[in-house]
Amino acid sequence: MALADISPFHTRAQTLPSNLASKFANPLHAYKNCRCSVLPPPRRPLGILCSVAPNQVQAPVVPAAPAGAENKRECFGVFCTTYDLKKDEKTKSWKSLINIAVSGAAGMISNHLLFKLASGEVFGPDQPITLKLLGSERSFQALEGVAMELEDSLYPLLREVSIGIDPYKVFQDAEWALLIGAKPRGPGMERAGLLDINGQIFAEQGKALNAVASRNVKVMVVGNPCNTNALICLKNAPNIPAKNFHALTRLDENRAKCQLALKAGVFYDQVSNMTIWGNHSTTQVPDFLNAKINGIPVKEVITDTKWLQEEFTERVQKRGGVLIQKWGRSSAASTAVSIVDAMRSLITPTPPGDWFSSGVYTNGNPYGIVEDIVFSMPCRSEGNGDYELVKEVNFDDYLWKRIKKTEAELLAEKRCVAHLTGEGNAFCDLPEDTMLPGEQ
Amino acid sequence: MALADISPFHTRAQTLPSNLASKFANPLHAYKNCRCSVLPPPRRPLGILCSVAPNQVQAPVVPAAPAGAENKRECFGVFCTTYDLKKDEKTKSWKSLINIAVSGAAGMISNHLLFKLASGEVFGPDQPITLKLLGSERSFQALEGVAMELEDSLYPLLREVSIGIDPYKVFQDAEWALLIGAKPRGPGMERAGLLDINGQIFAEQGKALNAVASRNVKVMVVGNPCNTNALICLKNAPNIPAKNFHALTRLDENRAKCQLALKAGVFYDQVSNMTIWGNHSTTQVPDFLNAKINGIPVKEVITDTKWLQEEFTERVQKRGGVLIQKWGRSSAASTAVSIVDAMRSLITPTPPGDWFSSGVYTNGNPYGIVEDIVFSMPCRSEGNGDYELVKEVNFDDYLWKRIKKTEAELLAEKRCVAHLTGEGNAFCDLPEDTMLPGEQ
Repeated sequence: MALADISPFHTRAQTLPSNLASKFANPLHAYKNCRCSVLPPPRRPLGILCSVAPNQVQAPVVPAAPAGAENKRECFGVFCTTYDLKKDEKTKSWKSLINIAVSGAAGMISNHLLFKLASGEVFGPDQPITLKLLGSERSFQALEGVAMELEDSLYPLLREVSIGIDPYKVFQDAEWALLIGAKPRGPGMERAGLLDINGQIFAEQGKALNAVASRNVKVMVVGNPCNTNALICLKNAPNIPAKNFHALTRLDENRAKCQLALKAGVFYDQVSNMTIWGNHSTTQVPDFLNAKINGIPVKEVITDTKWLQEEFTERVQKRGGVLIQKWGRSSAASTAVSIVDAMRSLITPTPPGDWFSSGVYTNGNPYGIVEDIVFSMPCRSEGNGDYELVKEVNFDDYLWKRIKKTEAELLAEKRCVAHLTGEGNAFCDLPEDTMLPGEQ
Repeated sequence: MALADISPFHTRAQTLPSNLASKFANPLHAYKNCRCSVLPPPRRPLGILCSVAPNQVQAPVVPAAPAGAENKRECFGVFCTTYDLKKDEKTKSWKSLINIAVSGAAGMISNHLLFKLASGEVFGPDQPITLKLLGSERSFQALEGVAMELEDSLYPLLREVSIGIDPYKVFQDAEWALLIGAKPRGPGMERAGLLDINGQIFAEQGKALNAVASRNVKVMVVGNPCNTNALICLKNAPNIPAKNFHALTRLDENRAKCQLALKAGVFYDQVSNMTIWGNHSTTQVPDFLNAKINGIPVKEVITDTKWLQEEFTERVQKRGGVLIQKWGRSSAASTAVSIVDAMRSLITPTPPGDWFSSGVYTNGNPYGIVEDIVFSMPCRSEGNGDYELVKEVNFDDYLWKRIKKTEAELLAEKRCVAHLTGEGNAFCDLPEDTMLPGEQ
């Protein structure tokens, strides 16, 4: 969802069935017989890529984990020492250890997030954790550096750290998978190209989660384009509930709350019920119809309808771009904060009457949004890791029209990656570049 | 103490008495009559600088704050909105707001630290805070970017954020001053040159603290060379207790604990009573005579005396350099963690029998270390922001000899900056470059 570290797709022949392995061994091979449909671009030429010919499209495959992977833990440094965690659980009233896997672990977002996880900011002061860091061959040394800094931080709750480049090892028994790593957009690359390249990473990581992660793993997809990456991931992990996959739209929600607070001249803790609908892209819909300020509908507090309709959404979306201009770097710190917020929203009960936004699977949604996509919607949680969609929301024509537009975009993105979700021919007709400013 | 952001010394004529202002207006002027003594370098040529001629050396001057500065708060964005904090204090049982000033606020260490402060990681979930960010003219836009990310993070405890480049405004009423900003070493610059350039920054900041900060402000100096910068700072703030000034050696302590844990094959939470003695430089002394593992003296657990004497200290000191090699960036995250640790050690009672290290003023120390320098020593706190030096420590010839060496270095650094502490002629005879690897 923001500039993320590179965590390339590692095609490992031994993890793929032999009939696929030979085809994937040379990624260029796949282009040869490409028959993906491409519509004429309405505005500018599209750099459409297609990596699998239609006759290669298959239902998701669950490769077996490499032999012995389930036993091999690639522990790091001081985290390889033994310790009596059972004693700590008893004397300090600690909970049982939980496993958290993080991809793109050598990147800047992770550099903020990992220390927040280790400090207890997410899971609390009585929850010891394991961090399982996934990087790439290129970033492996940086990954060691990150692990060394975690060592030097002496966090008592951080009991194990392992690093690796094989998702089939790193995701072993993961109860949370924070998928931050994604390839950044290269020069001239369109969203369609990014969808294909990163889609392959998330297809592979979905397969790996399906093969080795906890059967109830919660998956938070941050790498862009995060909604469709989450869809690809869940489609490749049929043995994990689709409801467990999230695409991060929490930074958008946080930014929207801040902009409403600024306009209304109130502190941001007075803004509630903020929904981001749809895609994490410029078609996203920050919902000012249902949001409240001091418990009162926003439209009754901010009567400047022109601002709400024409400026508000733009301010939310341009925030990342302005930040890069000001600070020279992408918003890694506030992105990490929003990941923490998103996780805490699932493990603590939602305050009465309020909700939070998350990009989740649409099947069974009460709003009439098309099924089988990942769409940001208002959620509530009892704090057990699960959530329910909020029923008490209002729609008007203005809101619904915008929701249909972002829905249409997600359907188009879905058609672009059909070869990665096992649903036939990829067919890419994305009309425009809808990447958020300041993101790659 | 680690790579820090640039926060240049701003000579503001209006903040200095007129007789000094004219002399400082052109910094080059000061070199003209320089008569600082320079000893022949024993190893390599020293780039000795001296910015004030002996006849200009004066006792610390306390300039008056600019008119109206005490009332002007340069609030940022949503933090300019009014809010009913008294109500929050009542309904949420919050403590009264405290003011925290941070210099070098646009740098990487601060980029980790500010979010930790705002999250409640340091002062707890019932302590609302104000962040007052000091940057430079050059970094002002970046400072705005940092403030925007803090806005977007919606931390409920973060009630006010202000940004500025004038320490006389930013330090107003500060109860904590975290002095992270320092000029990095330029190419070919020796420690002596760095001492002079950064010494001027810390002299100015000491004067500003003296003029406008809380009378009991706690000052944590991180910018290098941090011990002597802290000494300069406290000498220029005669109305603030010298005991309130700290030079950060906590990252060294943390790294030392981790290395002992690694060698002993235990988890790092088993290592206690770790003292860093002396200077934050390569003469520092990580004390393995008094440290304990599982409550047992280290030397009884790690019987490899050769490793303790020859490898241990080197491992601690080289850590920063190895990290830069691996990760390509300096250890901003773990430095920020160690600042949090250092602050928490002052506001929470030290566990019975244990202690922590901090670079503090030596007057009245029970060890026989020379007075009137800032020296890292073992401290205990009752959690009230204050500390006492630990009396129950052992010395042997080996430890004492090394303590005397780091003491001699600090005395030499002190002579180098005599013009900044109001103690006569600067006289610089630093024999070698003792910057820690990976720091600037």
